[in-house]
Amino acid sequence: MSKNLDIINNSESVVRSYIRNFPTVFTKAKGHKMWDENGKEFIDFFSGAGALNYGHNDDSMKEKLIEYITKDGITHSLDMASDAKADFLQKFNDVILKPRDLDYKVMFPGPTGTNTVESALKLARKVTGRTDIISFTGGFHGMTIGALSVTGNSMKRKGAGIPLQNTVTMAYDNYVDHDTLVYLERFLDDSGSGVAIPAAMIVETVQGEGGINAARFDWLQKIEQICKRWGILLIIDDVQAGIGRTGTFFSFEAAGIKPDIVCLSKSLSGYGLPLAVTLIKPELDIWQPGEHNGTFRGNNHAFVTATAALDFWKNDNFEKEIHEKSEIIYSFLEHLVADYPQLKGEVRGRGFMVGIASEVEGFSGKIAAKAFELGLIMETAGPNDEVFKLFPPLTIPKDELQRGLEIIEESIKGLIKEPVTN
Amino acid sequence: MSKNLDIINNSESVVRSYIRNFPTVFTKAKGHKMWDENGKEFIDFFSGAGALNYGHNDDSMKEKLIEYITKDGITHSLDMASDAKADFLQKFNDVILKPRDLDYKVMFPGPTGTNTVESALKLARKVTGRTDIISFTGGFHGMTIGALSVTGNSMKRKGAGIPLQNTVTMAYDNYVDHDTLVYLERFLDDSGSGVAIPAAMIVETVQGEGGINAARFDWLQKIEQICKRWGILLIIDDVQAGIGRTGTFFSFEAAGIKPDIVCLSKSLSGYGLPLAVTLIKPELDIWQPGEHNGTFRGNNHAFVTATAALDFWKNDNFEKEIHEKSEIIYSFLEHLVADYPQLKGEVRGRGFMVGIASEVEGFSGKIAAKAFELGLIMETAGPNDEVFKLFPPLTIPKDELQRGLEIIEESIKGLIKEPVTN
Amino acid sequence: MSKNLDIINNSESVVRSYIRNFPTVFTKAKGHKMWDENGKEFIDFFSGAGALNYGHNDDSMKEKLIEYITKDGITHSLDMASDAKADFLQKFNDVILKPRDLDYKVMFPGPTGTNTVESALKLARKVTGRTDIISFTGGFHGMTIGALSVTGNSMKRKGAGIPLQNTVTMAYDNYVDHDTLVYLERFLDDSGSGVAIPAAMIVETVQGEGGINAARFDWLQKIEQICKRWGILLIIDDVQAGIGRTGTFFSFEAAGIKPDIVCLSKSLSGYGLPLAVTLIKPELDIWQPGEHNGTFRGNNHAFVTATAALDFWKNDNFEKEIHEKSEIIYSFLEHLVADYPQLKGEVRGRGFMVGIASEVEGFSGKIAAKAFELGLIMETAGPNDEVFKLFPPLTIPKDELQRGLEIIEESIKGLIKEPVTN
Amino acid sequence: MSKNLDIINNSESVVRSYIRNFPTVFTKAKGHKMWDENGKEFIDFFSGAGALNYGHNDDSMKEKLIEYITKDGITHSLDMASDAKADFLQKFNDVILKPRDLDYKVMFPGPTGTNTVESALKLARKVTGRTDIISFTGGFHGMTIGALSVTGNSMKRKGAGIPLQNTVTMAYDNYVDHDTLVYLERFLDDSGSGVAIPAAMIVETVQGEGGINAARFDWLQKIEQICKRWGILLIIDDVQAGIGRTGTFFSFEAAGIKPDIVCLSKSLSGYGLPLAVTLIKPELDIWQPGEHNGTFRGNNHAFVTATAALDFWKNDNFEKEIHEKSEIIYSFLEHLVADYPQLKGEVRGRGFMVGIASEVEGFSGKIAAKAFELGLIMETAGPNDEVFKLFPPLTIPKDELQRGLEIIEESIKGLIKEPVTN
Repeated sequence: MSKNLDIINNSESVVRSYIRNFPTVFTKAKGHKMWDENGKEFIDFFSGAGALNYGHNDDSMKEKLIEYITKDGITHSLDMASDAKADFLQKFNDVILKPRDLDYKVMFPGPTGTNTVESALKLARKVTGRTDIISFTGGFHGMTIGALSVTGNSMKRKGAGIPLQNTVTMAYDNYVDHDTLVYLERFLDDSGSGVAIPAAMIVETVQGEGGINAARFDWLQKIEQICKRWGILLIIDDVQAGIGRTGTFFSFEAAGIKPDIVCLSKSLSGYGLPLAVTLIKPELDIWQPGEHNGTFRGNNHAFVTATAALDFWKNDNFEKEIHEKSEIIYSFLEHLVADYPQLKGEVRGRGFMVGIASEVEGFSGKIAAKAFELGLIMETAGPNDEVFKLFPPLTIPKDELQRGLEIIEESIKGLIKEPVTN
Repeated sequence: MSKNLDIINNSESVVRSYIRNFPTVFTKAKGHKMWDENGKEFIDFFSGAGALNYGHNDDSMKEKLIEYITKDGITHSLDMASDAKADFLQKFNDVILKPRDLDYKVMFPGPTGTNTVESALKLARKVTGRTDIISFTGGFHGMTIGALSVTGNSMKRKGAGIPLQNTVTMAYDNYVDHDTLVYLERFLDDSGSGVAIPAAMIVETVQGEGGINAARFDWLQKIEQICKRWGILLIIDDVQAGIGRTGTFFSFEAAGIKPDIVCLSKSLSGYGLPLAVTLIKPELDIWQPGEHNGTFRGNNHAFVTATAALDFWKNDNFEKEIHEKSEIIYSFLEHLVADYPQLKGEVRGRGFMVGIASEVEGFSGKIAAKAFELGLIMETAGPNDEVFKLFPPLTIPKDELQRGLEIIEESIKGLIKEPVTN
Repeated sequence: MSKNLDIINNSESVVRSYIRNFPTVFTKAKGHKMWDENGKEFIDFFSGAGALNYGHNDDSMKEKLIEYITKDGITHSLDMASDAKADFLQKFNDVILKPRDLDYKVMFPGPTGTNTVESALKLARKVTGRTDIISFTGGFHGMTIGALSVTGNSMKRKGAGIPLQNTVTMAYDNYVDHDTLVYLERFLDDSGSGVAIPAAMIVETVQGEGGINAARFDWLQKIEQICKRWGILLIIDDVQAGIGRTGTFFSFEAAGIKPDIVCLSKSLSGYGLPLAVTLIKPELDIWQPGEHNGTFRGNNHAFVTATAALDFWKNDNFEKEIHEKSEIIYSFLEHLVADYPQLKGEVRGRGFMVGIASEVEGFSGKIAAKAFELGLIMETAGPNDEVFKLFPPLTIPKDELQRGLEIIEESIKGLIKEPVTN
Repeated sequence: MSKNLDIINNSESVVRSYIRNFPTVFTKAKGHKMWDENGKEFIDFFSGAGALNYGHNDDSMKEKLIEYITKDGITHSLDMASDAKADFLQKFNDVILKPRDLDYKVMFPGPTGTNTVESALKLARKVTGRTDIISFTGGFHGMTIGALSVTGNSMKRKGAGIPLQNTVTMAYDNYVDHDTLVYLERFLDDSGSGVAIPAAMIVETVQGEGGINAARFDWLQKIEQICKRWGILLIIDDVQAGIGRTGTFFSFEAAGIKPDIVCLSKSLSGYGLPLAVTLIKPELDIWQPGEHNGTFRGNNHAFVTATAALDFWKNDNFEKEIHEKSEIIYSFLEHLVADYPQLKGEVRGRGFMVGIASEVEGFSGKIAAKAFELGLIMETAGPNDEVFKLFPPLTIPKDELQRGLEIIEESIKGLIKEPVTN
């Protein structure tokens, strides 16, 4: 075994996880490619679980980052003012918010997804004076106690070691055969239901960790209407589905809804650096100064790359490109399901956030393992890891995308030839 | 007003805080100095609230970071293996753990202080099967619901919008006139006390946000004994006091105790980049793979600078240097208290984590404001911001330290001449 | 106003409730009749909300009670042994448990419904080591914090003043148009649902306070199967529906299920005296001695009358009689719904636990008020008091039952002649 | 073994407790005496754990009760009006409240101690909008989840099976060697303490179950002042200490304080029948009608005997008599401690609520067991059952009191002769 792998396996807590599926030591990355210490090249269909939508080490961002570091720009600033932060806010307003007719205030809640979720939940409770949050089956929002309490996965919930409180789980779209919102509305409408009108609902438009479940647009629209009817705040957790992953900057744009609070992180910095924002409708921005704080809210390196990354959104070209490539992916997945009935597969997802759920127990994991052997990095998702999940960088060239898809097909073929047992 | 400041004040959530005390736009930083967009120079006695113990943009780390970025080293890796991570783990073991006879497993819980605290609390509950955590008056551990539940500040607690549960607050050292541990032991010893044997106690050896309260070594030793007696895990939250701030790498070294779990963040990366680790006694490392995860656990830029920063600890020189300079600071503070009785001041703290609590309401804030005018950045702390807090970089040259102290004295003199009213 | 009414209205807390609907002072009661201080006679279709299934002051029980008091039998005994308690246990085993092939252990949890519910929840959590309880929409289980946490009514829940925790509400039978158990099973089956496998489900076979909702037998059977499949304890709260109210001693007999834990109170003592038992499958009876206690567990007067009341169940006659009379009631209600379309009524319930839900807002309350004027006591139920609820004593003679039903019809006729407005 | 005892031991849940200490079947009781089925006579120094302060089956109450039952008075009335209830309220106002210059509204919260405690906690939270309750070490308030959350005993708390929340435990008087209120005030005064200003404090003036701890009057007065200073409601749980047990009707009279809410039960009905009231300052009586309800709030048999029992308080005679006899008891206990140093005893308590805490492990239990053999019923208390507890009826004749005390001394003598080992 590699000395480096050895060090990690001996020193790092057993909680480590991805290293178990991708047991090699990576040393270099560019765009959609990664290389390990043996020089083996991989196509990355994982993209840092959605944190690398623009691929690895984008040259334009890299240049600006090195320049900033070189000139001794402020690295760490808490929530003091820096020019890098002002530049980011200006451009985020100009390129993202204004063209979409959004006027959110921007909160820096700490640099990770779970930080933005926690800040959203706290603010929703503060604004409404209510305690409960409605979350949805299959939801994933983070590992700190507040975010974990709205996360569905039972193994992760048990990790809390305490009962998780002040939340109610409702059925996500397509959870059962009939309209799940009938159920939700009945609970809210009936004062004897035992379910209180909540402070907020927290929703992913497409659930990543939960198994690549895409809510229909009209389901999302009805959720927005239900929230309005009862004065419930609508929080869209766009940490994984946002920043282009489903085809638009915000994943909810296509549904035509305007959430009260939006959580962004992962690909926001563009370069894979920790950054998160919580977007808040101005009338809800009633925090006390410092009521929520944190040491790494002012990660200026991330401001610099995030600002550069916004260039992708200055016009429609990037959206169009994502759209074209996502059609390729989708067709490919439909082909797999149709032509490999042994998969017992179902295509899931939207845009670049797609996968196939296989009813054959353990099969998705085997496909991902085989693909890794063949030089493609791909994750599984879902409560039983039943989905293999395609998360290429949005910037991947079409031919390379094609090459990645072929590796997947090759992996499946190989497994079907082998007897599929558990 | 500056256009940049304008952008921030208009776009950022009202939760922003430090910008209110330091209302200028910073553009450059080096060592113990910062410059704003007008070219004004400041001495930094704040150090990113303890995240910049080695000062800003240290040249050695900077060089390694630029080199790493230039060669397209892995930036973001979740918990996959990277050479940068292996290097960090190896050096952390060699330079920090082994020489101190510690054999902790290293968990990457997400890159911020609140992440490491949450992971520590979760693990302690999981290991013991108990639910309660004992925290201490004046404690500060973070803003996510788990960490907030062990934080004392009432304004921040109310920000949760829900009752904070599964914790018991006990009196920190010197909280009242007699030994606070008599009380603690009585509660634990008495099965009718209503206080259950907790999973863990979480302790800061010196409380930063709580008002620069330093626990005596024998108090800490007794805490360790009490924990052992009842099978309670001892968590030292060394996020602010660690990495040299009190004179040694871990703040608890001088007390001769060995915590079960240690939380590190802030200055761990050396360069102000988001990084945190949770150190766990091997026998307690019973996580399920992936039971606690997070997107930014593999912040390789931070691994690179953190590895470089460990050079400071290869021998005793740095500790000695800290010690010498902290004596200067301490003498200065004693001089202030003695010679400016109008302060009604009390010297607090240890090492480079010191301050003066002034009984005159609002006076500490005025001193900090005055010092800012005169080119020195300094924060207040404590439940009523009654403490002005000296947090220079550990690396500050003696003459510059002296210059900073003089600005403080000048600020006080100026205020005493003015009528001190509220 | 009556002096007595005056005293009560001035001295008793504003929380008083039934006195507002029945504003007179009662002084005497016998069987199905009550008299007020003015000598006005009322037919009682309320039966102490199900606590007086055998009517008021039954002569046989009365005789035994007076005899016991006269001879200075033990009145209050905590859980010391008394002959009255032994007699009750013996007869309860002989007349109730054995013939039904049930071998429950009998716990005296305190003398009220909420006491038995609390003990059941505590035991279920203790036995399983799990924290959550699944309750159902429309459920009513009591006013203490544990019981309130499984109660649906939002006004009563808010009365807690704290968030109610460790419970999940699921849809009762007929809550929506499709099978509610599809939802329940999906939530339990999916490890990503956010709903943990609970310690227990607590179910009323017919919901009284929730609006006289009767679950179908096959729904109850499926609930039992679901509980078995996942090792969930099934608690039947038979406080209101038990002791003959639905036609059999236990309300669940007709459904052919055997709960793990049964809660009984209300009519258990027969005479309206406070008494409750928690019936526990022997293998679940793992309490520590004294782990749940209470001052009034040994209410021997209630033991005496409860023992006497069991005579009703020595053979099938009483069940047959209940059945015959309940058919009369049911036919009458169907006639009302059919012949008074202005009611927009729906017949609800089973046995002697029936009512009509009227879609006309406030109408049910008006019917009850009118009936009170005409000498009949009757309650409303449901989240919006939309149901008028017929709860005559099971022992009411047929002609008197008929007379009561006529008063109801007369009340409706009177109201329909009047313009029905709100 | 007795057939009756057999039935109970086989049929009743293992949670049964007192029957284990007093393993015989009681059949008759009068005043301070009980008889078992073998005709053995016992002196009762237990008094139903304080529910029988007037002794068993008092003739005057008995007569009124039989008369009421005979004439078919209302037995069960929920919170409808009855003449028996009006009579009780009138006399309670006339004899108890007015002479003491108290104008409480009377709530019937359900007939047991835990019901009144739950109602008090709910109301305090509702009135203040705060969630926390401060309780005290050694406190005992009941077994339902709300009351259990303010109870100290760890075995009973664990019985909940869930973490008990929204409460903070503070040290009762004499819990440590210095003034415990210094701590309490410091916690409340310091906004960084982690302890929120609570809705209420719940206090027993003398703790029964907690080990017969009597708070000093000036401690209680300071508690009242602290509550006033911070707008905290003061709840006195007088369930065990009230109704004359400490020498006055309310136990807090001698301390000169006026609680905001008072909980009464146990001896309130006089005859051992379930009854409880919650007394509420009029301005705090802001319940919604029916917001807290319960089936057995209208236990009219208990109203009848409670009304009769108030005759004891029509003048000072009863108080004087209690005082005289309690001096006898106290002197006797001091004599025991002085003359039997083997006891390592400490006298505890006030009035008729006294005992001796023995440092010799298990000794108090042995004394109680020996006394039972010799015909005296007496309980132990305290977290480790280290206190033997003298709770004779207040009405016991002096010579019989003396006889009971002699049995205790005899028991001790007998044990000292035997080798005292565990």
